[in-house]
Amino acid sequence: MTATVTELALRARDAATVLAGLHRAAKDAALLTMADAVDASIADVLAANAADVDSARSTGTPEAIIDRLALNETRVAAMAAGLRDTAGLADPIGDVVRGGTLANGLEVRQVRVPFGVVGMIYEARPNVTVDAAGLCLKSGNAVLLRGSSSASRSNAAIVAILRDAVDKSGLPPDAIQLVDASTRQTVHDLMTARGLVDVLIPRGGAELIRSVVDGSTVPVIETGVGNCHVYVDANADLDMALSILLNAKTSRPSVCNAAESLLVHATVARPFLLAALPALADAGVIVHGTPEVLALADSVGVAAILATEEDHGREYLSLDLSARVVDSLDEAVAHIRRYGTGHSETIVTGSLAVAREFTGAVDAAVVLVNASSRFVDGGEFGYGAEIGISTQKLHARGPMGLAELTSTKYVVTGTGHTR
Amino acid sequence: MTATVTELALRARDAATVLAGLHRAAKDAALLTMADAVDASIADVLAANAADVDSARSTGTPEAIIDRLALNETRVAAMAAGLRDTAGLADPIGDVVRGGTLANGLEVRQVRVPFGVVGMIYEARPNVTVDAAGLCLKSGNAVLLRGSSSASRSNAAIVAILRDAVDKSGLPPDAIQLVDASTRQTVHDLMTARGLVDVLIPRGGAELIRSVVDGSTVPVIETGVGNCHVYVDANADLDMALSILLNAKTSRPSVCNAAESLLVHATVARPFLLAALPALADAGVIVHGTPEVLALADSVGVAAILATEEDHGREYLSLDLSARVVDSLDEAVAHIRRYGTGHSETIVTGSLAVAREFTGAVDAAVVLVNASSRFVDGGEFGYGAEIGISTQKLHARGPMGLAELTSTKYVVTGTGHTR
Repeated sequence: MTATVTELALRARDAATVLAGLHRAAKDAALLTMADAVDASIADVLAANAADVDSARSTGTPEAIIDRLALNETRVAAMAAGLRDTAGLADPIGDVVRGGTLANGLEVRQVRVPFGVVGMIYEARPNVTVDAAGLCLKSGNAVLLRGSSSASRSNAAIVAILRDAVDKSGLPPDAIQLVDASTRQTVHDLMTARGLVDVLIPRGGAELIRSVVDGSTVPVIETGVGNCHVYVDANADLDMALSILLNAKTSRPSVCNAAESLLVHATVARPFLLAALPALADAGVIVHGTPEVLALADSVGVAAILATEEDHGREYLSLDLSARVVDSLDEAVAHIRRYGTGHSETIVTGSLAVAREFTGAVDAAVVLVNASSRFVDGGEFGYGAEIGISTQKLHARGPMGLAELTSTKYVVTGTGHTR
Repeated sequence: MTATVTELALRARDAATVLAGLHRAAKDAALLTMADAVDASIADVLAANAADVDSARSTGTPEAIIDRLALNETRVAAMAAGLRDTAGLADPIGDVVRGGTLANGLEVRQVRVPFGVVGMIYEARPNVTVDAAGLCLKSGNAVLLRGSSSASRSNAAIVAILRDAVDKSGLPPDAIQLVDASTRQTVHDLMTARGLVDVLIPRGGAELIRSVVDGSTVPVIETGVGNCHVYVDANADLDMALSILLNAKTSRPSVCNAAESLLVHATVARPFLLAALPALADAGVIVHGTPEVLALADSVGVAAILATEEDHGREYLSLDLSARVVDSLDEAVAHIRRYGTGHSETIVTGSLAVAREFTGAVDAAVVLVNASSRFVDGGEFGYGAEIGISTQKLHARGPMGLAELTSTKYVVTGTGHTR
């Protein structure tokens, strides 16, 4: 019989109590043992994954999703390498965030402590299983992993290997537990496990994230939807702008930090678009533009589609791009405020004053000046394997590192102080 | 006709956009103008408050609640003084939380920014109206204030004075708005205003807080319930322990940082309780003890009540105290883990090793060694007027200062960087 989410969570709480007291050395040793175990079990993981892939193919799953599900030797080796990288990261637990001595002599320290139990609800990619397990263990948290049913054999194989390695390292294996993915009930149970699960992190499509945010009584860290804009200012270096636009749109269109929308200042719209539209077309990008954009596209013989209102708000995750000409910085900021999802917004400009105004006025997790939004990533920021990119304002915003998987505790020390 | 919560929130968002761009000087000037306006309008505030108090008395409201509602010249002057104190605090907005240059030359800065719109849902005390308005304005946030209907005239008078002062300072008065308290519908509307309200902070009784936490789709910062323990260790200085216990229990029993439960190590239970039980009785404290405690109480002729299971979990907020003898530090920690609310937990001990183990093992917002839990307060910690004490682990934990009313934004600057 399968354990209920409550049973798993209670075991996780006990494990978390042990993890919270561990020093970095013990956690790193376990992470390295986990990495070695993954390397030694590539065949087992690939066999389980092949069964998942066969099953997905037989039910007509699109190849794009199969690609996210499928593992090979390189991908499994990358999981093990990620665990070793995590072992190499500094341990945030015990860091003194603030501290001092009050006028009355009381010593106050605010110290980083683990959350306790983290719940992950995520879709196809089995590498999330390893990344989340490693980051949670390093930050002293137990983790409940609720992956997708399509990856259930892969995830079961991976979690068995990781638990065994944790056990061999002398740590509680219940620090890493897989939640039954064969029923939606377990998602509901995780979302309502307030008091047992300290935080839920959903990773996946917009619909998954929305349903967790709306239905959960456990605190949630919202990740991911990115309708990211590139704004080409009147003062932009147009070659730089084109290079950034092409990189942000085409280097990996399926990810949340890819560009989805182009805004161009009217002053430079003609020269920029006359160069950009053919280059985008060459890269396979379909532009959904306003009439001004379409006219310029037509003048250079490039096909483009008239943008609907809906296009401006879409996260395509494909080689599509909405495009609009704006008359001012204010109009660009207002457009982003209306259609943006608060993920990553880019300006290309040579003007310090304009850059300052844009970074101040745009309300997003990350605002970039003269750089591609593709850099918005925990690995690029030096935070190691990524648990997600938060698009909410509470607790964590932007790429989340180990510190974002912690809470704090005040320790106050006196000598018999009374008030 | 009364504006809907959605209308108020949309106006608040516009005001928040202005506030986010203000420098400290402009905000401090507004806070000082607000303080002067409150001082100049004491008569108006007291007249409105007298009407609230009359109305509350006529419906048979208990005097303890009347006391929380009632204002006098001193209390109103204290509100104005609180605004001046807030003007004197450092402005967290623009602080660089983390920053550096990546290997590729990208400059990454994580900067403090306002949340945007804060919603407060709170009970009787009208001073919360002023404190919240001041702290939110200083941290660049607009605030929607939903007080209790019993204080509606007082709150309306205060908010009118504050808005007028904000307007005179050249800032948008919609930064401070009162939500209609005559219907429960507005509480529901605030709780479901996701996307319009960035964070909700409930302040009040356990029932209010629970209903907001359970029913809200807007992120909530949970404040307050404190079943706070004092653990007297085998190595405690017993005079110090008694002094801390009396202070924590009796100096202000109605607040969340007051002690509600006593745990005594068996080794010192007899000498400590033989001194403590008469002292507690002299201070008017009713002890709800286990049989061992009752036997000692009986031996010194002090009345005590047999503790029920429920007593150990109660936040009395009165001159009652549950008491139990434990055989070990582990038993004390296990008791606190079972019955505590994660607010403030105190140990009295002379042993460094025991203090270290207790502070590590107890999972609470604040753990105190040889100091009264009554110090757990934003004012005492130097954070200025308090917006609440968070008992959750996400975003803020413990007394909340201005920094806890902010989010962050990454600003990434390159020179045409692509990935």
